[in-house]
Amino acid sequence: MNIYLWYMATPRRQRASKKELILRKAASMFREKGFAATSMRDLAETIGIEAASLYNHIRSKNEILEAICFGVANRFNAHLDTIEAASGTPISKLETLLRFHIGQMVDHYEEVFVADREWKHLEEPYLSNFHTQRRTYRKRFAGIIEEGIRHNQIKQIDAPTAVLIILHAVSGIESWHRSSAKVSAQQLEDNMVLILIDGLRKHG
Amino acid sequence: MNIYLWYMATPRRQRASKKELILRKAASMFREKGFAATSMRDLAETIGIEAASLYNHIRSKNEILEAICFGVANRFNAHLDTIEAASGTPISKLETLLRFHIGQMVDHYEEVFVADREWKHLEEPYLSNFHTQRRTYRKRFAGIIEEGIRHNQIKQIDAPTAVLIILHAVSGIESWHRSSAKVSAQQLEDNMVLILIDGLRKHG
Repeated sequence: MNIYLWYMATPRRQRASKKELILRKAASMFREKGFAATSMRDLAETIGIEAASLYNHIRSKNEILEAICFGVANRFNAHLDTIEAASGTPISKLETLLRFHIGQMVDHYEEVFVADREWKHLEEPYLSNFHTQRRTYRKRFAGIIEEGIRHNQIKQIDAPTAVLIILHAVSGIESWHRSSAKVSAQQLEDNMVLILIDGLRKHG
Repeated sequence: MNIYLWYMATPRRQRASKKELILRKAASMFREKGFAATSMRDLAETIGIEAASLYNHIRSKNEILEAICFGVANRFNAHLDTIEAASGTPISKLETLLRFHIGQMVDHYEEVFVADREWKHLEEPYLSNFHTQRRTYRKRFAGIIEEGIRHNQIKQIDAPTAVLIILHAVSGIESWHRSSAKVSAQQLEDNMVLILIDGLRKHG
């Protein structure tokens, strides 16, 4: 990189990393207090900057929520693309998908929680768009289960219901995260696979 | 009942049913807005009485939360007593327990939701007491799973983790309840039993 580019890049990098800090702190506050109850003033105070300078990095509280929700959606969609494109049986794909969801909940807890629980505060056109993406994601997830049913690998169940059971069991991880759980993240993941994936599997 | 008792009983009955109405409306508001964001004034307005007359029936917002949480706890504890005392295999007991939890979520949605999500707003001594009851309930639930593991009917899993997976899958029913789900309550229940109970079962 030449000096000119380096000079140009530095402030942009700084801005990006400050923005990342803002998003991280905001996700944590939205998770704890809820989006509606968190003010830009609270957020600035937590970060330790002036409210006015917060607006140098981000236009509004809603823009923060958009960044969090669509960032999470991007990761989830990209992973599902990979799963769908990969070879493997429906059961093994579901296991990979379940492990991914648990990993996201453990490693990106605040953002995933906010994208899952607070997205209804998005404004249009983001609200409808995000809602549709959620439905599409669940449909594709159910599609893998239905493929397993057709291949006689998964028992005759209502696939959309199975998706909700799995997703809700995973979103319950929040309480492990907060409590001084005696099981490690790995044990938790393995137990969930044992129960949920094996619960789908058709035996005998 | 003689006339004197009838005369005495009527106002008490009326008071009880007014109190039930208050509890029902409060549970619905606590569920929707959260306990902290609901005021006694809001509640009185929703019921259509004067705030002052609300206090003839109930002393405080916290007393309402106590009535909701401990009412739910009583039903859950009584059911678990019955299950423990009954004959039957651990797997069949778990199936009964799961169906009970789903039924409670479907039939008493608002109260169960509030007891599950808003109980942290209880004040002492109720807070610690309720917290302990929750832990005890989960321990007894896990005890049934552990019995199944000892009897070689349930696979080697971490029983407390299995309890959390089941309870969180059930508490996700809130979103079915709200969405225009295409599955009936009975189908939902049967699918959950198929996946979760069979997921616990040891095969072969």
